[in-house]
Parts: sequence; C-alpha cells; structure tokens
Amino acid sequence: MFKKVLVANRGEIAVRIIRSLKELGIKSVAVYSDVDRESLHVQLADEAVCVGKARPQDSYLNMKNILSAAVGTGAEAIHPGFGFLSENSRFVEMCEACGITFIGPRSETIDLMGNKANAREQMRVSGVPVIPGSDGFVSDADAAEKIGEKVGYPILLKAAAGGGGKGIRRVDDETQLRKAFAEAQQEAQVSFGDSRMYVEKIMENVKHIEVQIFRDHQGNAVYFPERDCSLQRSKQKVIEESPCELIDEKQRQFLGEIAVKAANAINYVNTGTLEFLMDEEHHFYFMEMNTRIQVEHTVTEMVTGIDLVKAQVKVAAGEELPFKQAEIECHGHAIECRINAEDPANNFAPSVGKVKYLYFPVGNLGMRIDSALYAGVTISPFYDSMIAKVIALGNDRTEAVEKIKRLLNEMIINGIKTNQSFHLALLQDDKFIKETFTTDYLEKSFLPKWKKED
Amino acid sequence: MFKKVLVANRGEIAVRIIRSLKELGIKSVAVYSDVDRESLHVQLADEAVCVGKARPQDSYLNMKNILSAAVGTGAEAIHPGFGFLSENSRFVEMCEACGITFIGPRSETIDLMGNKANAREQMRVSGVPVIPGSDGFVSDADAAEKIGEKVGYPILLKAAAGGGGKGIRRVDDETQLRKAFAEAQQEAQVSFGDSRMYVEKIMENVKHIEVQIFRDHQGNAVYFPERDCSLQRSKQKVIEESPCELIDEKQRQFLGEIAVKAANAINYVNTGTLEFLMDEEHHFYFMEMNTRIQVEHTVTEMVTGIDLVKAQVKVAAGEELPFKQAEIECHGHAIECRINAEDPANNFAPSVGKVKYLYFPVGNLGMRIDSALYAGVTISPFYDSMIAKVIALGNDRTEAVEKIKRLLNEMIINGIKTNQSFHLALLQDDKFIKETFTTDYLEKSFLPKWKKED
Repeated sequence: MFKKVLVANRGEIAVRIIRSLKELGIKSVAVYSDVDRESLHVQLADEAVCVGKARPQDSYLNMKNILSAAVGTGAEAIHPGFGFLSENSRFVEMCEACGITFIGPRSETIDLMGNKANAREQMRVSGVPVIPGSDGFVSDADAAEKIGEKVGYPILLKAAAGGGGKGIRRVDDETQLRKAFAEAQQEAQVSFGDSRMYVEKIMENVKHIEVQIFRDHQGNAVYFPERDCSLQRSKQKVIEESPCELIDEKQRQFLGEIAVKAANAINYVNTGTLEFLMDEEHHFYFMEMNTRIQVEHTVTEMVTGIDLVKAQVKVAAGEELPFKQAEIECHGHAIECRINAEDPANNFAPSVGKVKYLYFPVGNLGMRIDSALYAGVTISPFYDSMIAKVIALGNDRTEAVEKIKRLLNEMIINGIKTNQSFHLALLQDDKFIKETFTTDYLEKSFLPKWKKED
Repeated sequence: MFKKVLVANRGEIAVRIIRSLKELGIKSVAVYSDVDRESLHVQLADEAVCVGKARPQDSYLNMKNILSAAVGTGAEAIHPGFGFLSENSRFVEMCEACGITFIGPRSETIDLMGNKANAREQMRVSGVPVIPGSDGFVSDADAAEKIGEKVGYPILLKAAAGGGGKGIRRVDDETQLRKAFAEAQQEAQVSFGDSRMYVEKIMENVKHIEVQIFRDHQGNAVYFPERDCSLQRSKQKVIEESPCELIDEKQRQFLGEIAVKAANAINYVNTGTLEFLMDEEHHFYFMEMNTRIQVEHTVTEMVTGIDLVKAQVKVAAGEELPFKQAEIECHGHAIECRINAEDPANNFAPSVGKVKYLYFPVGNLGMRIDSALYAGVTISPFYDSMIAKVIALGNDRTEAVEKIKRLLNEMIINGIKTNQSFHLALLQDDKFIKETFTTDYLEKSFLPKWKKED
C-alpha cells in the first residue's frame, strides 16, 4: 500500500479524499493556490505545497507544478478528485513517466472515453444501447441528413472531440441541417483542431440515470445501484439520489450487467460511471462515461456503506476489489443536495465573501455533509461555486426527503448567499415527491413557477 | 400517530429526539429552565415552555410544571429522554392521569425494575442468570453472612431501594460484615425510607455487556446486538461500542434470547436495556435493567440503521414494532466517545463557559456527532457535563477506531476544557485496541499510567 498520496484538488473533494487517506493510515499531501492557503484541505493534510496563483491554469491545472510537488514530497500516487486534471490523459502519462501512480483509469481509457464519438461506437459494439444516431463519424452533411431521416428530428450535430458546448448544433428539421453542419464543423475545427462530427437524436421526456462501475487490475468488476440525476440546471446536477424508485430490480440488474460488460470490453481499471438517458418506456440509451469519481458518489456510499475513495486507492495500489457483487447491498434511499454559493433570486449569480457563522446539523442517523467550509473561511471567485453536499439516508425515499428537508432547515451559512432555500422549495415540489421529473423539468417547469412565486 | 409531543429533557438527547419527531412530521414542544433559554433544543422545537429556574429540581424535575406545559400546548405524549424523569414511576402515573402518553414502559415496570432486589429476583425466576447472592431480601446480618460464606467474599451489601451510591457497603471478609450491615441498613432507612437489603458477590475482571430489547403492546419483542460499555470512570461510561468483538454469534443469540424472555415475562413495553457482567469464561450475570433509552443507543443505531427514538414514538402510539428480529442486521462496528466539559488534567473537574469556536468534522461515511453545541452557546454548571457524543461506524472495529481518532483529531471546541485528548490517548491504548479491558481497567490501570505520562 502507498505510504503517501498527493491530492490534486481543492474544496470538499480534497477534504473528503484526505479523510479517507487518514483512515487508511496513508500520509496526505495537499496542493493549493495562493488564495487557498487557509483552506481546510491544506489544514487537514499532513503536508501542503503551493502550486501557483489563483487561476486554475496556474495552479490546480498546472501539471508540472503538481508533479514537482509529488516528486518533492515523495508521494507515490496522485488522487485527482473530479474536475481539474481528473480526465486529462496527458497528465496520466506524465504521472507514469515520473513513476507516480495515477489513481484512476489508464490514459488510453481516458482518451477513448473522452472522444464522445469513439466512446459511443465502443459502447455500441460492446452491446450497450446508445442514443439513435450515426455509427461513428459522419463524413458530411449528406450523411447527417440520412441519419436525421432515419432517427427522426430533432437531432444534435456534435463535435467528436467536443466539450464545453462547442461544436454542437440542434437541428429541428432538414431545412436547418446544411447551415448548422457547416457552422458546427468549423467551430469544432477552431476549438479542438478536429472537425470530425457525429449525430445523435435529441431525446425528450427522459431521465438521467447513471450506473457506477468498479473494476480492478485482476479483472474483477462490479456495479452499484443506479443514481437518478435528472434535476439539472445549466447542465449541472442539482439533486442526486440512489436508487431510482421507478426502476425495478430486473431493470437495475440489466443496466448494471451491461455496464460491467462494457467495462470489461475496454479493460477498464478503477471506478467510472456510465450515464444513460431513460425514456418513458424505460429504455436506456448510453450518453457518455465519466472516467473518475463523481460529485454524487456519496449517495452510493450512503446506501451501500462502501467508501469508494478507499476502494479507489486500494485498487490503484494493485489490490483486488474489497467487495464482490453479491456483497453490494442497497439499504434504503439516499438524496444529495448540492449547496452552491450563488443567489437563486439573481439568476444564480455566484456569491463570494467570508463565511461569518456556520452551523451544520451533525446529529442523528443517516446524515452527512461533505464540505470544506468552516466559520471564518473566505469563498473566492476563482473556483466552482459548490461549497457543500448535504446528504440524507432514509429507510425509504420518504424518510430521506423528510431528513434532508430537516437538515437544510437547520443548516446556517451566514455571510454569503446560497441555494439552500431554492433546494427547500424544490424538495416540496409535487414532481419531485413523485420522482417523475425529467432532465428538462427543473429549468423548463419548476424554475419559471418558482420565480413567479418568489 | 401523535400530532404533538413534549420532550421533557435538555441538551443533546432533547435535540436528538426533536430531530426524529420532525422527520416523523410530529410537532415538538421543548421545555427549558431559565438558563437554557438560548439552548439548541429550544431553538429547534416548534414550541418551547419555560418550566422553572436552573436547578433541576425547579425545572427539568418539576413534574407539575412539565405536565402543565404539556397540557397547555396540547401535547399528546411526553418523551422523557434519559436521566431526569425518565425512570420516575410517579411521573408516569401523573401523565396517565392527565391523559398524556408517557413514551416508555408502564409505571409498574419502572417500579419493579427500580427496586434492584425485586428486579434481580424477577430476572432469576425468569431464567436470567444473576450475580451470585441473596434470593430476594436478606432479613439480617446473619442471613447476609450465610450468603457471604456460600458465594465467597468480597460481597456487596446493597439497599433494595438504592441509587446514587447510598446504602451500599463492600465487605471483604466476614469480620467486617456486621458493622457494615448496620451502617448500610441505617443509611438506606435515612435515604430511602426503606431499610431492606440484599447481597451480591463482587465480580472482578468482568466486562460490562448490555443488551437492548424492544417490545410493543402487541407482544412482539426483539433484541439488538450487544454493547460493550466496560470503559467507565466514576461509574460513568466513557466509551461504548457495538458489537463486542469477543462475543461470538452463538453467545450473542443466547444473551438476546434470555433478554427477550425476561421482557416477555414482565410484559415490558417500549425499549429497555439489560445490563450484564461477563466474566473471563464468558458467563453472563444480570446486574440491572434500564427502563429508558440510553446515552449509548446511538452505536446500536449506527450498526443496525434503525432509528430507535422513532420506534419508541411509534410503539408508544400503539403501532407494532417497525422491524422483526430477522430484519435486525449488524453491519460493521460502531464506537462512541462521550465528550464532557471537564478537565482530565485537573481530576476531571467540570468546565463551564462560552464555546467561542466550534468545528465538527461532518463529512465522509460513517460518522455522527450528537450534540446541542453551537458556536456561542454557554455551558452552565447546573447540568451533566456531557456536551457531545462522537460516533464512528466502520466496516470492522479497526476502521471504526481509525475513524473516531480522525474525528477527535479534527473536532475543535474552544472556550471550555474537554476530555477530547484523554479520549485520543485511550483510543491508542493497547488494551483498548484488543478490547480486552474490564470495568476496572480505566480507573485502576489506564488513568494512573496516563497521569504519569501527562
């Protein structure tokens, strides 16, 4: 087992990883930008190294400085958390070159899944149902038009190397197609130096359902109960839960088994998540794979009792998975609310400043708040606005909902604005209570209603 | 189900009960003494009534004022928590007279188990092994001497109506017996108006092992995995855990089944705990029964995932037990450290004052801190010094130990002295790690060693 691990991240995920490392008896090294000097992850780690100025490019994305910190402190492995360098295959290669273990999949896997068209094609040939669309790339607008006819409009033209919404166009009928294709292709060339395009049907009235898998170097693989992450705003998940009440045991097993099959097909190592869309008839369509630990891994931990970060470290060190499929039981229902430093009443504008008073309701069964907050900390404008994840576990969904409402009612974060009361409104919404919301529900239906009432 | 419940307690247990009531959708009424006006339990409850001045006799033990508060607010039931009025049969009768449900056993049960000689005799006839000693009361010193000869010295002469250490004498051989008997009997008469005595052998090198049971009005009864509460100072438990690693499944079942048998024999209703001593050969001897929820119920909740206070409320309202014996599974191992406002370096003298800064490490899996603390609260000298219960759940005992050490290392309570670092020293002790400590270990062995090193 590693003696020392560097955590290449900040905020709650860095804190969360450092805590698991401590419990494993592994020394931790934090990295920080100059504005994060007083951050909790720096305080909790055994050692901490400043890796640059506040801007992410200068610090948390600065591969050389982070690797220097690892080499300099004698860290044997790097945990990237999520975001930043967690899905950067070049960083993984640089780690390898320095003799440092990257806690995550191999660089080839990250490359394969990072190219959305390749990932889609790989899944299709592995027997995973994908969103109707092109098989691999489309060569030109004519080819795209043929697919549009076949799968039905609206469709999405997407850059294979895509990311950040670049090189993407929605096409509602064939008259829009040629212009949109030319624009998207050009944008893709400019943004990624790669003009290859592919086509997907736009799915409506769908839920975002995802399945996390875990696979070790020995080839043992398992899946976890699915998560429902359909409540989203600006493509960001807002509330996540596990399991999805609308999915039965047979479907759960079907989904899990195809996910494991896909992981085996690409010789996946460590943990990752396959994201699917689920339509009203409960057909699943693969969207993409995240080759890292995700924000919402916490709800899976709550229902299974398994520390996924500890398992990541063990598997990265060459150990076998510390659990078998039959040992992964789902006890109850867990819900997570992402607390952001933002002002919902002002179009969710980010809020920064000093946290003057803090109260976290830590008592009673089935609660957890993952956060780097403490009374006196300053929220800076440079990073993601997520400042806490409030998680509740109940024997059933109703109990989990009652518990998370109580937690949000008790929690006090003074000095900055947060989306705490927005969450409370959402938790009392009828569609939320029935879990019948789809991916467009929050923005298209709930938000306009909420704004009117607010 | 009740619509409104009054919580006749303060501090962390009142907060803990109010939180469960909220999740059940039941309105809560807090009671408070004049120095507790700003307490967390007052802030969290839906309503709050001042029941008197700071001294417990004037407020939290003031039966009339508490019942007036219940009647005045329309509360249909009273949860007594632990301590204060929780084992006062007269209060239970007064509740009944007011048409208010007492959330606990019947008054006759509290009376029966409150008289230690009767409880012992009741258990003996129910087939529960008791500490060797007298069958029922002893009439005089001659009778006590006969028992001393039979069971072997040292023995304990105990007042049947005992409590608070009054009317108790240790006798190491027969020459001390007559004087001790006369003294104890006189003290019992003065203290309790009841001079009846009984005799028990003093057990040495024993563990304190207890089994919680739960029984509903319909006669369904279950037991929970045992707790090891052997680490004690001045008869107060310091660290509790569940299960006990030294007890095997067969012994667990044996102990649980005799506890359920005893509960059935006395038609017990609601939850209670049978406390046993366990000798080196793993023989169990009944000590006493606590007819209330206990401080350490939390470790049982952590390993079983069952909210025992919610179950108390449901059973008191006439519902069937919400779980069957086969559904009570023990997942992992839980440990609780009682954090007291006291100064271990100054003979554990109570510490009072204002909490100036507070940090509770709320993240990651398997943690819980039950506490009424918040930044700015004042600890007053009138009540019990326990200010927080830090609880960790691990997949096994080793993981639970590592987790609770991490929690104690991260927790910050500034402004008052606490036993936090004393706990950390104890958690690293060799006997603690092996779980081979007995009830006298902390005071007789660990404490002198710790004082020398400190």
